[in-house]
Amino acid sequence: MKPDRKTLISAHELVKPHIHRTPVLTSRLLDEMTGAELYFKCDNLQKGGAYKIRGATHAVLNLTDEQRQRGICTHSSGNFAQAISIAARAVGAKAYIVMPESTPDVKIAATKGYGAEVIMCPSTLEDRIATIKKVKGRTGATQIHSSNDMDVIIGQSTMTKELIEQVEDTLDYVLVPMGGGGVSAGACLAVHHFSPDTEVVGAEPATSDDAYRSLRDGVIHPAIPNTICDGLRTQLGDVNFPIIQEMMKEIILVDDQVTIRAMKTIWERMKVIVEPSSAITLAVVLDNPEYFKGKKVGLIITGGNVNLDDLPW
Amino acid sequence: MKPDRKTLISAHELVKPHIHRTPVLTSRLLDEMTGAELYFKCDNLQKGGAYKIRGATHAVLNLTDEQRQRGICTHSSGNFAQAISIAARAVGAKAYIVMPESTPDVKIAATKGYGAEVIMCPSTLEDRIATIKKVKGRTGATQIHSSNDMDVIIGQSTMTKELIEQVEDTLDYVLVPMGGGGVSAGACLAVHHFSPDTEVVGAEPATSDDAYRSLRDGVIHPAIPNTICDGLRTQLGDVNFPIIQEMMKEIILVDDQVTIRAMKTIWERMKVIVEPSSAITLAVVLDNPEYFKGKKVGLIITGGNVNLDDLPW
Repeated sequence: MKPDRKTLISAHELVKPHIHRTPVLTSRLLDEMTGAELYFKCDNLQKGGAYKIRGATHAVLNLTDEQRQRGICTHSSGNFAQAISIAARAVGAKAYIVMPESTPDVKIAATKGYGAEVIMCPSTLEDRIATIKKVKGRTGATQIHSSNDMDVIIGQSTMTKELIEQVEDTLDYVLVPMGGGGVSAGACLAVHHFSPDTEVVGAEPATSDDAYRSLRDGVIHPAIPNTICDGLRTQLGDVNFPIIQEMMKEIILVDDQVTIRAMKTIWERMKVIVEPSSAITLAVVLDNPEYFKGKKVGLIITGGNVNLDDLPW
Repeated sequence: MKPDRKTLISAHELVKPHIHRTPVLTSRLLDEMTGAELYFKCDNLQKGGAYKIRGATHAVLNLTDEQRQRGICTHSSGNFAQAISIAARAVGAKAYIVMPESTPDVKIAATKGYGAEVIMCPSTLEDRIATIKKVKGRTGATQIHSSNDMDVIIGQSTMTKELIEQVEDTLDYVLVPMGGGGVSAGACLAVHHFSPDTEVVGAEPATSDDAYRSLRDGVIHPAIPNTICDGLRTQLGDVNFPIIQEMMKEIILVDDQVTIRAMKTIWERMKVIVEPSSAITLAVVLDNPEYFKGKKVGLIITGGNVNLDDLPW
């Protein structure tokens, strides 16, 4: 059953003390460049450098005392790892984070910095499942999935709910990156309940178009991790997919090269650090000027975790 | 005569419609790292990517109609150039910007992007004065100095005034970069009138310590442009120096290497782009842990104009 309006409002009240109400930034130069009115919901300025603290906190706060005592485990290549670590620390629970070996050093360091135990594992799905199983066996920790968990999705909806509250006029579109489906399903729910005249559009890398094809074919296709957008190398799940199927207008594909250009433009013009997985929303606008011309567009900026020693330009 | 409390309040009301009320960001990780409570007043998120729009707008709004018609001229290596260009455009006036040949391309492009006429000149003081004179002769434009103009200083005071309003508790210190003296004198005035229990401390590059020695010796020493902090390669002036002399607690010097480390830390942890001339405030905290331990410290983040193709790490 899909969560109702009241559930989303309660969830927001529950997590509010644990999260920043992040600013919505605008840029006259970018508006001139695109011909659209752009509203950047900047959860790169969220605690932990990413929106995922919203869903992680909401899910952790919904655990029983006994579950908290045994700890929380998850697998994540970065942002969600940090989010669970922060949320766990806030309720005095231990976090066990399984990370693929390809994880950038800066994300491993940040996760450990929040007090989590990090367990590295090979980057295949099988190894990941086996490692998680081992950790759960050893600790009795409760697993929280980063995107295919209704409590997580409801938590993520607060970002779009805030965006809707912070922009005076009704948005024509909310543009949201397509990763594992948690943030996009959350955006769909928030728009559905709080701004029904707005349409949600997904942004996905052209070389990693599993969500696009999933929506077209009505079945979940496996991830194609072939993109610079490291936060989007995941696939949809059976909890978030039905929400996206019902409520999202469409998914627009865009080349990584445009995303890199969009990323540099945001850094230069708006002075905030966004990762490729977030810059992809602006990339879709740059790539489709007629589509967004004269429209009020909310862009979900999910995070700013970037290795500053290895920039893509 | 120093401006009174009422003058600062009116100035803020006057410029409010033209500026962003920029957010004050905090970081639990940086607080843990330093043992202090840090409040970053982020005018890198200001229009034009720097606080200077405040002073520029205030000065431009105080011009007569006739002055506006003839235009405005100034010399600037970057942020103030963009600020005057934006402010001039807002009142329909022409801006003539004299820039030293050493100006980074990104700043020249941004200034032209706001509709200003850019006149390049050699980087010596004599050439600059001669070029400005020629421009004024040709156009009849009114010159506005970037830091040694009381209307500019009053405009800059709004940044620290906002910071004081945005932080619930009384700050122990406001840390401000020492450049031409406009932002620091503005900070002194705002603290003097709105938070008299707070102390203003200046941050200056150790290899460019003209303000430090000016304060020590009671005379204005010429600029030593020998630092990575390109916004701080200027000297104090006869309008702002008396204010700084009377109201600033002291100036603390810090090595550029610490500033570069502070800059990278802010990018990584806070996800905002700050230029070295702003990161120097955190550098002073990192370099003087005992001084700031347990204290509430406001850090004036003035700008984020950086050449992304030439980072110092």
